[in-house]
Amino acid sequence: MEISFKPVGYVVVGVPDVVVKNSYKGVEGYIEILPEYEEALRGLEGFSHLIVIAYLHKVRDLERRVLKVKPKKWAKLGIPEYAIPEIGVFATDSPHRPNPIAITIVELLAIEGRKLKVRGLDLYNGTPILDIKPYTFSRRIENIKVPQWYARLLEEAKKLNPDLKEL
Amino acid sequence: MEISFKPVGYVVVGVPDVVVKNSYKGVEGYIEILPEYEEALRGLEGFSHLIVIAYLHKVRDLERRVLKVKPKKWAKLGIPEYAIPEIGVFATDSPHRPNPIAITIVELLAIEGRKLKVRGLDLYNGTPILDIKPYTFSRRIENIKVPQWYARLLEEAKKLNPDLKEL
Repeated sequence: MEISFKPVGYVVVGVPDVVVKNSYKGVEGYIEILPEYEEALRGLEGFSHLIVIAYLHKVRDLERRVLKVKPKKWAKLGIPEYAIPEIGVFATDSPHRPNPIAITIVELLAIEGRKLKVRGLDLYNGTPILDIKPYTFSRRIENIKVPQWYARLLEEAKKLNPDLKEL
Repeated sequence: MEISFKPVGYVVVGVPDVVVKNSYKGVEGYIEILPEYEEALRGLEGFSHLIVIAYLHKVRDLERRVLKVKPKKWAKLGIPEYAIPEIGVFATDSPHRPNPIAITIVELLAIEGRKLKVRGLDLYNGTPILDIKPYTFSRRIENIKVPQWYARLLEEAKKLNPDLKEL
């Protein structure tokens, strides 16, 4: 069974991939919706945050076969490689996964026609957008729990990066 | 440009579609991961909530061309049709949208091999799953704003449904 989608827009950021990759807060940029979908943006004004669903087009076929990883986000925050456990990709945000789909929550700064100015993009310039949804109250889960390995890595990462908020 | 994915699993629920459709809290059921992806679940135990990305396979081609809707979720809660504004699909959770992808946040109740027992499914039995990600702290945005039309509908819906929490 094959499931097919077409991009409804693209990411436009003015910095190279490596800058996006190394920023754990994401960067500022645009989601540019294709003209044929502009009407679908009606009513979006006033939402402070959006859920962006994107296709990670730079992930190669071989990387789609990866099932376990040592998540790179911890290494970026200074955690040494040996302290990072090997985890199944469904328990991580790794771009290497069977279907390389990203869920990014961005702050909506302005709507300029069919260009959405946003903050918090962890997506490269040119990334195809599959869908956009508003971030509403039911998306915010108050009482969440994470595994011990996650809590321990986060604590360690916060010590190394005092300005780090949440992950 | 065509983007192709394959299901990594399927939704298994024991109730008919209409029950899922009319439940605004979602139902209890299973996400059954295909055997070839079982290893990708390692480390998932201990997360209280998951983000499930699914392909809404019952949406027809014609419904993918819908760009504006009167979101049905408000009508289900008793808001009269005339009081619901016509909104662009990117500002709603409507299943009718160019790429019918669902983002559902579920509570993880148990892991039984490659079956995830979950609560809060708004997906029909047999729905193909594209991806699973853990719900971590950074997915919870504290200070969110919604448009006036949304806030007003929510207030109205809460009056009509005293046990309604968030939407």
